[in-house]
Amino acid sequence: MTKRIITISREFGSGGRFIGEEVAKKLGIAYYDKNIINEIAEKSGLSPEYVLENAELSPKKGLFAYAFAGRDMTGKSVEDMVYEAQRKVILALAEKEPCVIIGRNADYILKDRDDVMNVFIHGDMPEKTQRIMCLHNVGTQEAAKMMADTDKRRMTNYNFYTEQKWGYAGNYTLCLNSSRLGYDRCEKIIMECY
Amino acid sequence: MTKRIITISREFGSGGRFIGEEVAKKLGIAYYDKNIINEIAEKSGLSPEYVLENAELSPKKGLFAYAFAGRDMTGKSVEDMVYEAQRKVILALAEKEPCVIIGRNADYILKDRDDVMNVFIHGDMPEKTQRIMCLHNVGTQEAAKMMADTDKRRMTNYNFYTEQKWGYAGNYTLCLNSSRLGYDRCEKIIMECY
Repeated sequence: MTKRIITISREFGSGGRFIGEEVAKKLGIAYYDKNIINEIAEKSGLSPEYVLENAELSPKKGLFAYAFAGRDMTGKSVEDMVYEAQRKVILALAEKEPCVIIGRNADYILKDRDDVMNVFIHGDMPEKTQRIMCLHNVGTQEAAKMMADTDKRRMTNYNFYTEQKWGYAGNYTLCLNSSRLGYDRCEKIIMECY
Repeated sequence: MTKRIITISREFGSGGRFIGEEVAKKLGIAYYDKNIINEIAEKSGLSPEYVLENAELSPKKGLFAYAFAGRDMTGKSVEDMVYEAQRKVILALAEKEPCVIIGRNADYILKDRDDVMNVFIHGDMPEKTQRIMCLHNVGTQEAAKMMADTDKRRMTNYNFYTEQKWGYAGNYTLCLNSSRLGYDRCEKIIMECY
């Protein structure tokens, strides 16, 4: 089966989101990122603000706190409910149309489909730091902190819900170092493989 | 600086060696794999047979045994001597000419050069098993055992000497799933990025 869906996982500051958006534009297919927050909020009954803060990044306190987070009588935490709503939204999107989906463990959620190409975008410290400083108007130290914090939370969320290792090559069809290859080259490779 | 060296790390059965050899042929550059065994043997004072068995794959017994292997008065084990000889040979090759180097932690050994592109080739179980069965004339179970054993030894060797994780995307410029992308596509991507 030809590929219809591209999932993009990425390190913070690697330009993965930008690359994914460009690829979607150039291929003329749908692009899903923060624009699915409202749908997840509706399905989970939680506010869009809460979902935005928690859907991909929880927990703030690390895996241990996560595993022992407050749970309701069915054993589900609020994080679990957000995750379940997110899972359903992503499954429905993949069914609906060819698209690029950024983050949100979509590679794992769609693992039973054979029309998905999973991409991981990473980069080198100096280039990632520079990008974060420009985009968020912060200094070097603040950029380094944002990077460490965001990637740690993405990794914890991924490892907890997928029982796989975030950033391990075996989970992805393609892994690209955007600092070494450049954004244009990354886009070109992804489009060629689609 | 433009890239001169391509290192290829690979899962057993993923076709990484084949892909590397084809890339070297097509680019018209040198190809180093088992053909450097004699040089490593000469430098380390050990037999080529011993180097072949141990240079990339030691230890058979896992990391714990490795760390506590018999050491001489300088604290060096025989494995360390092989590794040191291998390191010197790889540094000299990279200095000499543009080339493809297969395995042997070359990505890490050459980490201080900025003209190196590091590639990791991996694949899916069914395709890797099939390839091993054909190449080594063995059954499914034996192929699975060879794969698990070889990759475990490669991983242990890599993790021990580099203090990085084998197969973790961040160590490589490009990671490619050869089962999903096909060997031709992998070769094409590597050559485009060179």
